[in-house]
Amino acid sequence: MARTHSVLLLAVLVSACACAAASEQQTCTAPDSCTKEKDYNPEAGEWYGEFFPDIPKIKYEGLNSTNPLSFRYYNAEEVVLGKKMKEWLKFSVAFWHTFKADGSDPFGSATKAWPWDKEKDPLQASFKAMHANFEFMSKLGVDRWCFHDRDIAPEGATLAETNKNLDLVAEVALELQKGTSIKPLWGTAQLFKHPRYMHGAATSPNATVFAYAAAQVKKAMEVTQLLGGENYVFWGGREGYQSLVNTDLELEMDNLGRFMKMANDFKHSIGFKGTLLLEPKPQEPTKHQYDWDAATSVAFLHKYGLLEDFKLNIECNHATLAGHSCEHELEVARINGVLGNIDANTGDAQTGWDTDQFLTDPRMATLVMAVVVKNNGLGSGGINFDAKIRRESISTEDLFYGHISGMDALARGLRNAAALKEAGQLDGLIADRYASWKAKGGLGQKIINGKVGFAELEKYALSNPDPGSSMASAKQELAEIYLDMATK
Amino acid sequence: MARTHSVLLLAVLVSACACAAASEQQTCTAPDSCTKEKDYNPEAGEWYGEFFPDIPKIKYEGLNSTNPLSFRYYNAEEVVLGKKMKEWLKFSVAFWHTFKADGSDPFGSATKAWPWDKEKDPLQASFKAMHANFEFMSKLGVDRWCFHDRDIAPEGATLAETNKNLDLVAEVALELQKGTSIKPLWGTAQLFKHPRYMHGAATSPNATVFAYAAAQVKKAMEVTQLLGGENYVFWGGREGYQSLVNTDLELEMDNLGRFMKMANDFKHSIGFKGTLLLEPKPQEPTKHQYDWDAATSVAFLHKYGLLEDFKLNIECNHATLAGHSCEHELEVARINGVLGNIDANTGDAQTGWDTDQFLTDPRMATLVMAVVVKNNGLGSGGINFDAKIRRESISTEDLFYGHISGMDALARGLRNAAALKEAGQLDGLIADRYASWKAKGGLGQKIINGKVGFAELEKYALSNPDPGSSMASAKQELAEIYLDMATK
Amino acid sequence: MARTHSVLLLAVLVSACACAAASEQQTCTAPDSCTKEKDYNPEAGEWYGEFFPDIPKIKYEGLNSTNPLSFRYYNAEEVVLGKKMKEWLKFSVAFWHTFKADGSDPFGSATKAWPWDKEKDPLQASFKAMHANFEFMSKLGVDRWCFHDRDIAPEGATLAETNKNLDLVAEVALELQKGTSIKPLWGTAQLFKHPRYMHGAATSPNATVFAYAAAQVKKAMEVTQLLGGENYVFWGGREGYQSLVNTDLELEMDNLGRFMKMANDFKHSIGFKGTLLLEPKPQEPTKHQYDWDAATSVAFLHKYGLLEDFKLNIECNHATLAGHSCEHELEVARINGVLGNIDANTGDAQTGWDTDQFLTDPRMATLVMAVVVKNNGLGSGGINFDAKIRRESISTEDLFYGHISGMDALARGLRNAAALKEAGQLDGLIADRYASWKAKGGLGQKIINGKVGFAELEKYALSNPDPGSSMASAKQELAEIYLDMATK
Amino acid sequence: MARTHSVLLLAVLVSACACAAASEQQTCTAPDSCTKEKDYNPEAGEWYGEFFPDIPKIKYEGLNSTNPLSFRYYNAEEVVLGKKMKEWLKFSVAFWHTFKADGSDPFGSATKAWPWDKEKDPLQASFKAMHANFEFMSKLGVDRWCFHDRDIAPEGATLAETNKNLDLVAEVALELQKGTSIKPLWGTAQLFKHPRYMHGAATSPNATVFAYAAAQVKKAMEVTQLLGGENYVFWGGREGYQSLVNTDLELEMDNLGRFMKMANDFKHSIGFKGTLLLEPKPQEPTKHQYDWDAATSVAFLHKYGLLEDFKLNIECNHATLAGHSCEHELEVARINGVLGNIDANTGDAQTGWDTDQFLTDPRMATLVMAVVVKNNGLGSGGINFDAKIRRESISTEDLFYGHISGMDALARGLRNAAALKEAGQLDGLIADRYASWKAKGGLGQKIINGKVGFAELEKYALSNPDPGSSMASAKQELAEIYLDMATK
Repeated sequence: MARTHSVLLLAVLVSACACAAASEQQTCTAPDSCTKEKDYNPEAGEWYGEFFPDIPKIKYEGLNSTNPLSFRYYNAEEVVLGKKMKEWLKFSVAFWHTFKADGSDPFGSATKAWPWDKEKDPLQASFKAMHANFEFMSKLGVDRWCFHDRDIAPEGATLAETNKNLDLVAEVALELQKGTSIKPLWGTAQLFKHPRYMHGAATSPNATVFAYAAAQVKKAMEVTQLLGGENYVFWGGREGYQSLVNTDLELEMDNLGRFMKMANDFKHSIGFKGTLLLEPKPQEPTKHQYDWDAATSVAFLHKYGLLEDFKLNIECNHATLAGHSCEHELEVARINGVLGNIDANTGDAQTGWDTDQFLTDPRMATLVMAVVVKNNGLGSGGINFDAKIRRESISTEDLFYGHISGMDALARGLRNAAALKEAGQLDGLIADRYASWKAKGGLGQKIINGKVGFAELEKYALSNPDPGSSMASAKQELAEIYLDMATK
Repeated sequence: MARTHSVLLLAVLVSACACAAASEQQTCTAPDSCTKEKDYNPEAGEWYGEFFPDIPKIKYEGLNSTNPLSFRYYNAEEVVLGKKMKEWLKFSVAFWHTFKADGSDPFGSATKAWPWDKEKDPLQASFKAMHANFEFMSKLGVDRWCFHDRDIAPEGATLAETNKNLDLVAEVALELQKGTSIKPLWGTAQLFKHPRYMHGAATSPNATVFAYAAAQVKKAMEVTQLLGGENYVFWGGREGYQSLVNTDLELEMDNLGRFMKMANDFKHSIGFKGTLLLEPKPQEPTKHQYDWDAATSVAFLHKYGLLEDFKLNIECNHATLAGHSCEHELEVARINGVLGNIDANTGDAQTGWDTDQFLTDPRMATLVMAVVVKNNGLGSGGINFDAKIRRESISTEDLFYGHISGMDALARGLRNAAALKEAGQLDGLIADRYASWKAKGGLGQKIINGKVGFAELEKYALSNPDPGSSMASAKQELAEIYLDMATK
Repeated sequence: MARTHSVLLLAVLVSACACAAASEQQTCTAPDSCTKEKDYNPEAGEWYGEFFPDIPKIKYEGLNSTNPLSFRYYNAEEVVLGKKMKEWLKFSVAFWHTFKADGSDPFGSATKAWPWDKEKDPLQASFKAMHANFEFMSKLGVDRWCFHDRDIAPEGATLAETNKNLDLVAEVALELQKGTSIKPLWGTAQLFKHPRYMHGAATSPNATVFAYAAAQVKKAMEVTQLLGGENYVFWGGREGYQSLVNTDLELEMDNLGRFMKMANDFKHSIGFKGTLLLEPKPQEPTKHQYDWDAATSVAFLHKYGLLEDFKLNIECNHATLAGHSCEHELEVARINGVLGNIDANTGDAQTGWDTDQFLTDPRMATLVMAVVVKNNGLGSGGINFDAKIRRESISTEDLFYGHISGMDALARGLRNAAALKEAGQLDGLIADRYASWKAKGGLGQKIINGKVGFAELEKYALSNPDPGSSMASAKQELAEIYLDMATK
Repeated sequence: MARTHSVLLLAVLVSACACAAASEQQTCTAPDSCTKEKDYNPEAGEWYGEFFPDIPKIKYEGLNSTNPLSFRYYNAEEVVLGKKMKEWLKFSVAFWHTFKADGSDPFGSATKAWPWDKEKDPLQASFKAMHANFEFMSKLGVDRWCFHDRDIAPEGATLAETNKNLDLVAEVALELQKGTSIKPLWGTAQLFKHPRYMHGAATSPNATVFAYAAAQVKKAMEVTQLLGGENYVFWGGREGYQSLVNTDLELEMDNLGRFMKMANDFKHSIGFKGTLLLEPKPQEPTKHQYDWDAATSVAFLHKYGLLEDFKLNIECNHATLAGHSCEHELEVARINGVLGNIDANTGDAQTGWDTDQFLTDPRMATLVMAVVVKNNGLGSGGINFDAKIRRESISTEDLFYGHISGMDALARGLRNAAALKEAGQLDGLIADRYASWKAKGGLGQKIINGKVGFAELEKYALSNPDPGSSMASAKQELAEIYLDMATK
């Protein structure tokens, strides 16, 4: 693997492809098949032309634009509530959905034939896909990406070989990100696809699988550190059960606790500064997943003494599958001090499985960003598009449409959340509702300060008017009008 | 209120009513309207005849009985797994569903005209209902009941008056239970029906409501203690929110924590020995209830330092509304050491609200009782029928059919769970699945004992065969056959 | 009941209340308690002052308004796609939710103490509520309302008396609507609240109940006709089952067919010109309701030969309870030629019961109105706010906030739908997708025209390239961007 | 493909494998690797040994058996309600789930390495799988199977080649079934897996895809006819939409109607006597599937004039995904005269996707079989196990456990349904409930016979007592006890 060709390559990512027939033949293997000498790298022995030759750099064109390949809301450098939009909205491309999702589903074969997937050699295909990733981010104006170890590099015949593959691809990514602001938002280990994990990874009935998973996480965390990743994520796809009848629930959950403790110890042992994140999901593929939702994950972290060491990665589609709104899960994480990252997507409101669609609904985007504003951002976290274009969307430009719609929706949500905060009407309504808890020297403060117990409160209740005689309206409809006023 | 008449009364509960027209006129107010002198109590000035004159004491008749007013599975004194059935199955009648549910629903008026509700004076009606309760338990052969404060006694013009009403009714109950083994399984305070609680009780935006709720719980706990109640329950029907837009989630949840801490302090201050129980429910009436499910409740107890002081009351219909099986919630409670009580009912699998039907499904009953067996019983807890007959079931005998079906189903479940355990096949299958974690000196034990970390495990994984090459079947279908063999 | 006072009254509905303390005491019973003689009507013997004295006539103030008592989108006279907004949006107030919903729910008592409900005499209370209705519509600028017979007039001791009550209240309504453009969008009979309907009305196991229901519908249709109502609705709240085990499904559904046939015959016999509408709902209060969704209702109408005679009233919250989007149900009705009316509301996406909230979501409103535009309006139908303010919203002004938010949302939806149509991008995308079906002389036309069968198509398939080799993208993400461009 | 070897082969299916190491190496390619000469067929050039050498013929051993490889309820020749169990329960093996499901899911790779899948040549692999199918049925004692065209034979480079493959495999099946009672319960065409069907088959926006699908159904129906299949099924996996925004709903549904009409015409043109069956499913893989549920399918058949020509194949898991109980869907089909077949499986009550588990719940099996009994069987239809063992069940014996549990559950259900009918208590309860509709000369009969309309019924209601004063209990709890008495 050449160490220098990638840097050269990056320079041409947003220019038109220099190859004669780049759109058809993505690789030119000799200088004379490329129009410019610099496009050719002799050490690499090949050059990956543009994968999206017809897509220009996406620009902000404002609300009146009718160009679907423009931003109408997202203006990276514009300042909102004292920070640039790109700082509020640290967007990230999900490598797996964007470059590896082939459109197969439980009832159908692959539908997509991406140019970077035509390569037969799996390692070469991985290099290509990584180049496509960087071209994509560059054109989109996004400088974070997320990955599973097995998305970016192929499994080898042995773990050692697999690790080596991962090193090689990481090296390519490292080269590609040089001189750019690009780096991983987070990395993670794929502990659910291979049959060895069919019964779980950290929660496998087989201790050897636990060990294998540990080795895999160790390596994935090292690679994340190498690439400057800001967080490391644990999504326990198979850490759950299909049926309680054949499951030792207690042992499995304890083992999951042991695993996370080891992961945290390891993180400190290598000086990795990123945040460790649990990603709750209620089910699918398992019937029950142990990190069901935010509250369940908090219970887990409490039980195993890890609440100081982990935060949560909240995914909107996972929230709705668990019976919650996305803003609920974000709020639960926020008030427990563990709001770490957002996997921004949405489900179909009428389906019972994860559809991982781009979040495009203006109202939902507003409510999501309102929590981010309340949290004053996401710290080391960001907003990862854990979203994929539909199975039936098979053009590479569809990948851009999807991400543009998602970026614009959240930018719109941010603008709305800012407008809501600046208008102050809703905050005022809430302050009024809870005024009795804030009044100095009042009953509310006595309760909060632990000055009273049931005996004192009974005396108070017996000697004061029944509160039922002077109830206040909750004013939900008015609150919704205030919300709506900001939802432009 | 007479202190003695009830004892006399109890003696005739299962005999035929001595009054001339007891079924029509439930109260005889003078000696000559009763056939036997002892039925008349001059101090009370009245006597409540039988409310269920046509219902005999329900007996165990065995599997071949075609009498719907008999038990076919529940044989109280029969020993199963070393304990009497009545010890495994400490059944309890839910006062509110059985005596106070009038059949009204959001789209319809009351459908039931129970004989004990004909009384216009609310306090007299309460006395009658309590007598009906004791007659009902006696005929059914159940010696526990559960209540909310406001079920059993009417609200007065002031809190003081309300408390007095409660004292009067408690006195009647105390009289009625004398000389019997009957006592409350648990008591609780109704903090959801009165408009003062429309925004919550402990989580009200109004501090005065918090105080009122505290006073109410204090009193309800005192009454529970007085009656010898074995547990005290908190179901936070309105401790939740309808919308996040007008809610201060953090303050509300902190206040709920403060409330529970005060409740625990108060319990100890009066020397009440019963167990405090949180009852999780995901929603309804609120869109989101803070004690969503068992795991969420555990997180709550952890956060506010109450995990040692509270257990959970798991209701099956609440479990399914939260997206879990009932046995899942029971298991989560069990492995966290907080399985305290079961509210045995079932929902309709196709409706999104609490239907509180009697649990009659043999498979579900088996799975529920299997957890109880694994937990070696429920300690101070029992099995409360938090279930009501359908709105369209309007005969008093329907109340018996409902309870008989529920008691028989759980007795069947217990028999099945015992058979399952005694057969040992399923336990053997599980032991085999997890054998690698139990082997002395093996990798599993090293992990469990904290002897290894990621570095050691990586070495192990690199130098041992990939576990993927020798996966074992999870044998779920075989496990289900074993389960089925026991489901008679 | 005076025939003239109401007309006088209407003149002052939008002026400030002339009574000294109108907000507290809504009725002035003598001339000297009113400031202007004309407010007093000697024949009526009383005058109902304003019920909403602090609420002015709601005006359109445009997008930048921060006044929650204004319209920001709804501008009645503004022309959109060739029609006035008020023609596209024939809004209707739901009498029951707005004036009769008292905030009670399965777990709580009434929370609302509306001024028109203070009257003890039920008939007088009905008169008051009707006056409140007309004042409300007038201030809101809405000229349609919907009612159940039993909402507007109390049940008497006999059916004859009940009918008389209804006549009296109808007379009041008739007086109040004189000289205005106000009339009912639709009327209906309440066949679900009274215990006689506990097992169903047309589907009751008791034939006498069928007869009683028939009599009630007959009368309700007559009253609807009298008031100039434009439609008549059948919502079968209890026409369903709680359990199949005790239900004769076939007989019940046949009886429902018989009932609808009689209703249609009766309609023609009295010359009522309004449209008959079935309102689908999947369940609640019953576990299964026979008019489950639009497709099920179409099947029902087909089976009983009523498809030409009935249309559907689609309610959004019912759609989502049935697992469909609201626009799906509207589309199914539209393509079957039975889109008759919309009950505009929304459910909470995370609850399994009908919450009947005002539809305020901009995206949903756009999709709903896009179908209305495609249908070129709703014929005799309109948009009824089958929505209620939350239980915790207890001020009369909350009633205005709710309706304003709903009216504005749908006006916004209409503007968006118009913008979408005028931009033409989405229509163009769809036309392109289906081009093969429109090409003259092409295969698509041959199929449509019935010129080919399986044999010919097999020949075609065998002799033409596999279509799998040239699939087109479904471009869903692009379509969503086009939708979003219109969602302002 | 040899025409004779299969017959020879069949003779040894239930004997022990003659090959030295049959369990490891399933194919012996030369005479000397087989112990008996007759196992070797020179024309075929190979012999497929036993695939399930350790599994004996499964026998009925009765309730006390602890052998999981026995039937405890299913006794094929035993007479129940006048018919043999094997006649009531015409069980069918689903070829795709049993022989082709490899355990892959949206988050994981294949987990199963079945012996018949080791063959690299796809046609040879198909032959092997078909042999496995016949060995499996023979050992299980089942004589029906169901298939999709593409399950049993591989897709070729062209449609012609694909058809030829199908012919070759059909020939093998034909050979294998000679001399047995085995034949297909139904065949169908797989119109959802190949990318050409990504937008639908009959409902594709591309007319050429419609033609291709027609050709495929034509061929599949011919093959079904050739094999003596008793029914032909249409499950429209992709006949639906992912989003309405880019969909022409009306054209798509009309095209589906056209397709079914052509199918029916074709059936008659070739003299195929089997029943055509639509299989409803609400969604998955599409967000909305046009044959949503039984009622929707009936509406569809009505609209396109096909109600006389089609019946329904009701799948239990599809029923629950649509929000119905399985018995509801069966009943809806029954009373509309279109109950054709049952795909017997069950979903996980807590997951929102099709899990296709074996139906093992005793209560559900009883309710399902009660409808079959009421329908006096299923005509040309039967009970197909559209069910698969879990992804984690990877032993061939798990395939037997799954089917045995399903067969036994339904046999138990049949016994219970028969007991229920013979006891007569439940039928009596229902007859009592609806007595008013049967009484000669009574009001009910007048309504049924169309003798009365609203006018007459109003008169009746006005002159008779309000039925609300004498309501009868629905006795649901008693009905459930009767049901439970039969659920042994």
